[in-house]
Amino acid sequence: MIIHVSKTHENKIQELAQFYDAFVLKKENEYILVGSSKIKKVEPLHEEYVSKLFVAETDMQLADVKYHPKREVKIGNISIGGTHRNTIVIAGPCSVESKDQIEQSSQLLLENGLTSLRGGAFKPRTSPYTFRGMGLDGLKLLDRMREKYGFTIVTEVRDSTHVDAIIQYADVIQIGAKAMYDHGILNRCGKTNKPILLKRGFGATLQEFVQTADFIMSAGNENVILCERGIRTFETKTRFTLDLCGVAYLKEYTNLPIILDPSHAMGYSYGVPDLARACVAMDIDGLLIETHPNPKVAKSDAAQQLTHDEFSKLIQSIKPVAEAVGRKIV
Amino acid sequence: MIIHVSKTHENKIQELAQFYDAFVLKKENEYILVGSSKIKKVEPLHEEYVSKLFVAETDMQLADVKYHPKREVKIGNISIGGTHRNTIVIAGPCSVESKDQIEQSSQLLLENGLTSLRGGAFKPRTSPYTFRGMGLDGLKLLDRMREKYGFTIVTEVRDSTHVDAIIQYADVIQIGAKAMYDHGILNRCGKTNKPILLKRGFGATLQEFVQTADFIMSAGNENVILCERGIRTFETKTRFTLDLCGVAYLKEYTNLPIILDPSHAMGYSYGVPDLARACVAMDIDGLLIETHPNPKVAKSDAAQQLTHDEFSKLIQSIKPVAEAVGRKIV
Amino acid sequence: MIIHVSKTHENKIQELAQFYDAFVLKKENEYILVGSSKIKKVEPLHEEYVSKLFVAETDMQLADVKYHPKREVKIGNISIGGTHRNTIVIAGPCSVESKDQIEQSSQLLLENGLTSLRGGAFKPRTSPYTFRGMGLDGLKLLDRMREKYGFTIVTEVRDSTHVDAIIQYADVIQIGAKAMYDHGILNRCGKTNKPILLKRGFGATLQEFVQTADFIMSAGNENVILCERGIRTFETKTRFTLDLCGVAYLKEYTNLPIILDPSHAMGYSYGVPDLARACVAMDIDGLLIETHPNPKVAKSDAAQQLTHDEFSKLIQSIKPVAEAVGRKIV
Amino acid sequence: MIIHVSKTHENKIQELAQFYDAFVLKKENEYILVGSSKIKKVEPLHEEYVSKLFVAETDMQLADVKYHPKREVKIGNISIGGTHRNTIVIAGPCSVESKDQIEQSSQLLLENGLTSLRGGAFKPRTSPYTFRGMGLDGLKLLDRMREKYGFTIVTEVRDSTHVDAIIQYADVIQIGAKAMYDHGILNRCGKTNKPILLKRGFGATLQEFVQTADFIMSAGNENVILCERGIRTFETKTRFTLDLCGVAYLKEYTNLPIILDPSHAMGYSYGVPDLARACVAMDIDGLLIETHPNPKVAKSDAAQQLTHDEFSKLIQSIKPVAEAVGRKIV
Repeated sequence: MIIHVSKTHENKIQELAQFYDAFVLKKENEYILVGSSKIKKVEPLHEEYVSKLFVAETDMQLADVKYHPKREVKIGNISIGGTHRNTIVIAGPCSVESKDQIEQSSQLLLENGLTSLRGGAFKPRTSPYTFRGMGLDGLKLLDRMREKYGFTIVTEVRDSTHVDAIIQYADVIQIGAKAMYDHGILNRCGKTNKPILLKRGFGATLQEFVQTADFIMSAGNENVILCERGIRTFETKTRFTLDLCGVAYLKEYTNLPIILDPSHAMGYSYGVPDLARACVAMDIDGLLIETHPNPKVAKSDAAQQLTHDEFSKLIQSIKPVAEAVGRKIV
Repeated sequence: MIIHVSKTHENKIQELAQFYDAFVLKKENEYILVGSSKIKKVEPLHEEYVSKLFVAETDMQLADVKYHPKREVKIGNISIGGTHRNTIVIAGPCSVESKDQIEQSSQLLLENGLTSLRGGAFKPRTSPYTFRGMGLDGLKLLDRMREKYGFTIVTEVRDSTHVDAIIQYADVIQIGAKAMYDHGILNRCGKTNKPILLKRGFGATLQEFVQTADFIMSAGNENVILCERGIRTFETKTRFTLDLCGVAYLKEYTNLPIILDPSHAMGYSYGVPDLARACVAMDIDGLLIETHPNPKVAKSDAAQQLTHDEFSKLIQSIKPVAEAVGRKIV
Repeated sequence: MIIHVSKTHENKIQELAQFYDAFVLKKENEYILVGSSKIKKVEPLHEEYVSKLFVAETDMQLADVKYHPKREVKIGNISIGGTHRNTIVIAGPCSVESKDQIEQSSQLLLENGLTSLRGGAFKPRTSPYTFRGMGLDGLKLLDRMREKYGFTIVTEVRDSTHVDAIIQYADVIQIGAKAMYDHGILNRCGKTNKPILLKRGFGATLQEFVQTADFIMSAGNENVILCERGIRTFETKTRFTLDLCGVAYLKEYTNLPIILDPSHAMGYSYGVPDLARACVAMDIDGLLIETHPNPKVAKSDAAQQLTHDEFSKLIQSIKPVAEAVGRKIV
Repeated sequence: MIIHVSKTHENKIQELAQFYDAFVLKKENEYILVGSSKIKKVEPLHEEYVSKLFVAETDMQLADVKYHPKREVKIGNISIGGTHRNTIVIAGPCSVESKDQIEQSSQLLLENGLTSLRGGAFKPRTSPYTFRGMGLDGLKLLDRMREKYGFTIVTEVRDSTHVDAIIQYADVIQIGAKAMYDHGILNRCGKTNKPILLKRGFGATLQEFVQTADFIMSAGNENVILCERGIRTFETKTRFTLDLCGVAYLKEYTNLPIILDPSHAMGYSYGVPDLARACVAMDIDGLLIETHPNPKVAKSDAAQQLTHDEFSKLIQSIKPVAEAVGRKIV
């Protein structure tokens, strides 16, 4: 249940929050209290304080499009979601590997008129015996690209021990699929106001995914972007299965911007261009594409990264698709 | 292993077929023998009969794009696959319910310039207590629409007891997801030369799916069209999960035309338009869309069928997407 | 909805069946009419004919334990289900391959005091290029073992083209996982009174599985045994995932005997003994175990068949487990 | 690759570790270096330092039974794994809720001769609007039970922000299914020597699961226990699907003790007793069972917790099963 209380009843907020065991979001002229969806009505004696009431069926509440129209999130000076028709392309290598590599990635963005650079500095690998990223040094390389080219930087937080460093250096904080349930990260991301790119866990239901968005939002940060990146199914010829039916669901029932990641879903570069075009045709707010100056020597996810040449062709090919659905690639 | 033998060695065919335990396909000027992919070479004394040899890694053989370039299949006078750039839209209700209903569906096709009518006469339901279709009467209603409007008819065979009737009345024989493993149907469909629309079982791997195409092809009918219609995953907010990563795989590794069915994958009409546009952007050969004059009263799959109005809007919206990927909706 | 009507109202049966679109089961002193579970009550003017009424939530009706207590099925002179505490072991090779092989399998049964021989004559393979069984010759070999040793024969029907031959030769007709949705087979099996061993499709939900049992039962044959044999999941280190949680569900909510098949679930012989013991500890009515005189040369499923030595050890080891849960291995 | 180097070459350790990018485990008389499994041999000039070499196929290395025989882990004064035949039962409520509740749980353990108490203080919920546990106060209540009754305490770490508190108060640190990929937790748990009960993520493959065990072990803590608790599949009648085929795999290929959690897998108390007996018959090292003085009012997982009466009956019933497979319930 979501209760809006005008600022004029400021003195009642604490009492109400305690009574309904609710999170409190402070807005300019009002307070928003969010409690369990199991609560279906306010007590009669509290009714006078309520300016707006939303009763939800499930614990997807702040993200529910019935509660709030489509929300807008700003990435640098680009707005996505809301009534905007931008489809942002966030691109770059899986891992930041060197100054030279990240400089080449930046040149690729410039050539294609793009402004959002991605790259992993802290990599959440499933094997302990593989490359875990450059860490802070990687962040600093990304930071330099922002200074030099005015890019917005999107990078992933692997675990809560370095979430502060990520928040400091990134413009968009990416919560990876494996970290979707990490309360330490979620709580901390709820305390910043930077945009959060929340990836769906590959074993997570849509319900859990949206509840996780509510987790961050109820802690205070409503700048959440949902990212579908493939779920785990019985099919193993491809790395994961991109769940576009699920995307149709998210578009219908939630108010958050949606960015899709065909690279991780497919796991093989050959399928990425077709899938990227399909994603754009789904009428969504953004794409995350992995590209590397030389995929063969990439330190992680070598098979799925596009060459720079393939990437530039892809960008050209998605523009008419975006136009066909009334969108603009930015 | 696939062995091509010139007609000049006709007298050796039986011996070779027996030796390699192979299926024999008779062509104008040659014979094609197809045996297990475990056989990796021909005996030296047989080499003189071999005009072409294809050694495969797995039992996906006749459908392998490394063996044979993209195959063309004709549906009426529309060619799909091969080097053609047509994306055929096959539309109509889930079940044939009445003369009036199927006449209305036909009018909808005419209005949208389409020529392929689908409708189920034998419905493979999972509950015994639900509508199983009009049977032969349904087939005859479809047949009348062909005569009246020149449509091609696409209808589903539920089990091998009526496969002959379906072959007689349909232009394209649809093998449903639940029938993908039905050897009785597969064998019989291998003996006709009508196009077979083979749907992927919702629990079937891509490997099994393509092997099933090989099943039909090795029995003599190479006019097979692959149809992805959603696989079963842990996500239940949508009926199934449309596997577009799998479609990327099929496009890369097989030579068969591909038609997609977003209606069954989604299970809810609200998501069908977005998904249909995504499918078209995947650069595939056709769409299967369910639409009903009055979905609310449909005897099967009521939730997923588009109204005629929604359908016409959808058709208009997919044309520019098709154009964007160099395709034409037919 | 299930309606019991006394034989005294015999003249009303046809009218009632038509009105409720119901299947009719003729019993000694009454008729049982089974219609859709969506029907929640009988018309007032029909009430006088109803001796018993069962309103179900879903289309699992005849198999519902709330409708009918645990049902008994006889395999030869062994009773399973109901209040019996027998756990029958049905064993033998995956495929019948030769007279000699099946004779050795029979000797193994005799040594272990078992009486139910399984063996596939018609094999439903997913590749067309692999061994599909000996067909009718295989059935006849099994038949000879019955005559010679008094065994009951359990064998699989692959498709509806040979279902009559199977019914003629087998004591228990096995419907394989891939045939679970085959209406041709289901209908025909509903018309015999021989026990049907219905395997769960590896992509089938429990709901669909039990509805399929209802399919056979509503057609007239209530001798249905449920067989869980592994479902398809994202885990591929093992062939399938044996769903014992699902078995707990079936035990709680259905009235049918349950037989488990650890061999197909695991796909590797090393895991079969542990799993077989776990199955027995689940307090179920039977086991299906694949064993071969020489698994290495088996023409199908070589990896999962136990040697005869491993099998005999397994039988010894499951007896105390059966005893621990108040069961007897037969 | 795992390289053992005698202490006599202590001065070479750092050089070797750097060269092979390896973790270093210090043992009494030797050092163990663990690098990527992609490295298949040591350089000739390093051969003289190698006392033992293990080349693995995958990054499951320290947990590989071909590298090291079955490992023993001590929980209080009970040894599991290795050549021991103990099956430990760890029981208690899902969440610690009050002093009174945890006292009742303790009495239940005493009555049944058990010594390991579980209870969640930090709950990793998927909804932000539900009970997240008593936190530190919960830990202290558990601690009091240890002091009073000599129990060993098993409790879960939700995220890395409180991992130190858990390590301080618990005898066994449980890493929950949702935390399996949390590097912050894994790294910290690798630095203690307390036993780690590592639960398999419900979307994690066996390969990833065992690699995660290697993650902890390579960081220095070899006291890892694997816990299968159900994976997510298409079947939703039960909460998860207990993967006993996977357990057979783990028993065959890894050297770690295995504890099973039928409560979470099933999600409904009615199935827990049958499943618990099946687990014991799998010949494993322990069970995790949730039981609550009054499940109906439990603050989390109410449906799956046994009453104390059901629990005591369960314990009686698993003893003969354990005996049947040569095990002892402790």
